[in-house]
Amino acid sequence: MSVDRARLERRIAELSAIGGTGMSVTRLGLSAEEQRARDLVGGWLRARGATVRRDAAANLYGRFGDDRSPAILVGSHIDSVPEGGRFDGALGVLCAVEAVDALLDDGVKFKRPVEIVGWCDEEGARFGIGLFGSSAAFGRLPGGAAQRADKDGVTIAAALRAIDEAGDPTKAKRDTAGLAAYLELHIEQGPRLAERGIPLGVVSDIVGLMHGRVTVHGRQDHAGATVMTAREDALAAASEMVLAVEAAARALPDAVGTVGEITVRPGAKNVVPGECVFSLDLRARSEATVEQLGRDVRAAIRRIGDARGVRSSIDVLSRVPAVPLDPPLRDLFLRSAKQVGVDAPELFSGAGHDAENSQLAGVPTGMLFVRSTGGSHNPNELATLDDAVLGAQALALALKELAG
Amino acid sequence: MSVDRARLERRIAELSAIGGTGMSVTRLGLSAEEQRARDLVGGWLRARGATVRRDAAANLYGRFGDDRSPAILVGSHIDSVPEGGRFDGALGVLCAVEAVDALLDDGVKFKRPVEIVGWCDEEGARFGIGLFGSSAAFGRLPGGAAQRADKDGVTIAAALRAIDEAGDPTKAKRDTAGLAAYLELHIEQGPRLAERGIPLGVVSDIVGLMHGRVTVHGRQDHAGATVMTAREDALAAASEMVLAVEAAARALPDAVGTVGEITVRPGAKNVVPGECVFSLDLRARSEATVEQLGRDVRAAIRRIGDARGVRSSIDVLSRVPAVPLDPPLRDLFLRSAKQVGVDAPELFSGAGHDAENSQLAGVPTGMLFVRSTGGSHNPNELATLDDAVLGAQALALALKELAG
Repeated sequence: MSVDRARLERRIAELSAIGGTGMSVTRLGLSAEEQRARDLVGGWLRARGATVRRDAAANLYGRFGDDRSPAILVGSHIDSVPEGGRFDGALGVLCAVEAVDALLDDGVKFKRPVEIVGWCDEEGARFGIGLFGSSAAFGRLPGGAAQRADKDGVTIAAALRAIDEAGDPTKAKRDTAGLAAYLELHIEQGPRLAERGIPLGVVSDIVGLMHGRVTVHGRQDHAGATVMTAREDALAAASEMVLAVEAAARALPDAVGTVGEITVRPGAKNVVPGECVFSLDLRARSEATVEQLGRDVRAAIRRIGDARGVRSSIDVLSRVPAVPLDPPLRDLFLRSAKQVGVDAPELFSGAGHDAENSQLAGVPTGMLFVRSTGGSHNPNELATLDDAVLGAQALALALKELAG
Repeated sequence: MSVDRARLERRIAELSAIGGTGMSVTRLGLSAEEQRARDLVGGWLRARGATVRRDAAANLYGRFGDDRSPAILVGSHIDSVPEGGRFDGALGVLCAVEAVDALLDDGVKFKRPVEIVGWCDEEGARFGIGLFGSSAAFGRLPGGAAQRADKDGVTIAAALRAIDEAGDPTKAKRDTAGLAAYLELHIEQGPRLAERGIPLGVVSDIVGLMHGRVTVHGRQDHAGATVMTAREDALAAASEMVLAVEAAARALPDAVGTVGEITVRPGAKNVVPGECVFSLDLRARSEATVEQLGRDVRAAIRRIGDARGVRSSIDVLSRVPAVPLDPPLRDLFLRSAKQVGVDAPELFSGAGHDAENSQLAGVPTGMLFVRSTGGSHNPNELATLDDAVLGAQALALALKELAG
């Protein structure tokens, strides 16, 4: 099966040059860079005979085969975080293109349509709506999404109009009856494959997630004149809470808890903090564990606040259910990986993916992870060319079995 | 002794109207509001026969008596923090004016010159240099102070030129041989007098202080994909350090430790913090305790970093020695307070004061605290009129003993 190593390498370089500085890649959702990336990939697909289109949410599709039977959708997202790496999202699109190219090179005739997709704005780094393009395609956009603005006040609607779309991303919703399956290859954002020395993994579940914001109300005081026993220090209380989040996540299986943002008011070196706001990101493989983690964290925050005499409140900002992916497609990817010589483990994904939208919308969905030795969302992301070739080969074999 | 309650009340109202909103007072160093406050106070002094002048650092002086013998200096500062209260600094100037008025009303003839001072920009809220005016007067300004700029890029030199000074605050340095003593009345910024129900206190020492900045280098990672055991979370480490600062200060007598500022990078809810920077404010009554607190905090930060596998560094930004005030002037204030019926306790000051500059420059210095029921640096600062009158009376009695 003729995955073309040199062609894949060349395309990795071409795509990562868009928004790239040599070290990092910045290709935000609905930016000029993201559009140039769509133009590049669309050009490859058109050259190979695909019917290429962009939908109302700026997702790129290239369809091979023109009958109306349910298609096999394969791809990933085309945007990046600010100063991200070359592989997160991009590798899934590149390997999808390469897999189809390889099958066509081998003379495979598709028995059902194959569509390659480059999802728009998966990262949500610009407008704050992650999985934007796939949410639009699968009817899962939050209400009022089009009016969400970036830090310069540009709304999603305006950014869509700037590339000649109508400005209503909900129009991108597609009929899931037209899709037989969705396959996505993505770098693993964590270290499990790298630590075990295995190039490929098959995703069993995508974690459930709770995003929240905790506000701690203490009392602002003079840092010199207020004795330690008279303080209601919002940051000291929040520090205990941050450690409680860590401890609660450590105590549960397949769970993580993160405080990634924190601000204090008034925020002066010589003033005891009067208020502290921090973010909560709680995730677990199963719904039951997400709920348990949420309860444990709430209880700890309440207990710490009571003991210190500070008030605190928790706002839940979003809640995404845990999504088990399609078991037959998990088996298919396990077999395809075996065929290219990899005994791939089943892993849950701690990160959200466009694949959860398709699975939740009822489209059987499978995901293949490729080892990254440098994590993700940073310039050190690295899927080696050897691993990328193995990923493209396994993806092509799976695609051949479904559509060939 | 004829402290005039109604006159003092009227002047409190007049001065707090400058930069005041009815609730809070904003009278930043070298602002138009601070200049209007100087004009107001200077007018009162001139009307009473003082020789009024402004020096090169915009300190206001009003001198009674024209012989060249060493003067008794008495006053406080005339600026406020943003959205501060009516009493921090202002009450010391107002009571100094009232004390002199009362003595003159009583027909007291000063045997040596008495100078009232309104120090410029004690708070340092605008240019970041606390105790600005008194530092200039006592030759303790940091190098390059004139070029320090506010957030709009206006330098101290430019702000001085805008009020027709030459722009070189070091020219304000005075010959300390010309000063026999400095007396300052100030609200207590902490709760000790309010908690004990006592209107006046005498300051024994001004605390020593260490300001520092701690940087924690962890590893930025994906919040979903990075298992708890593989993290080097800079904020979790910093949270332990914040609690260690609190514990170290609690464990030592007359010591406080505060983390008032904290920032994380990259600061996204779904990213494990890679770097965290926080401020350190360590204070204690004695030099030995400041040093011990600094050692304990350093050791704790090193131990926590080692245990978590994160690097950390501590930069010392400033170090102010603990300053014991002049013992004979402490005794004088204790006696004066007793004469107005108050058994005043000796307290150390956890906040810095202009009085430390005069004492460090060799001018015998005494400080009197007036109870504040609403802390300081906020609109709730409150010295009751009863307490203010007691303070002015005790100050007048001390002044009479030194100069009358």
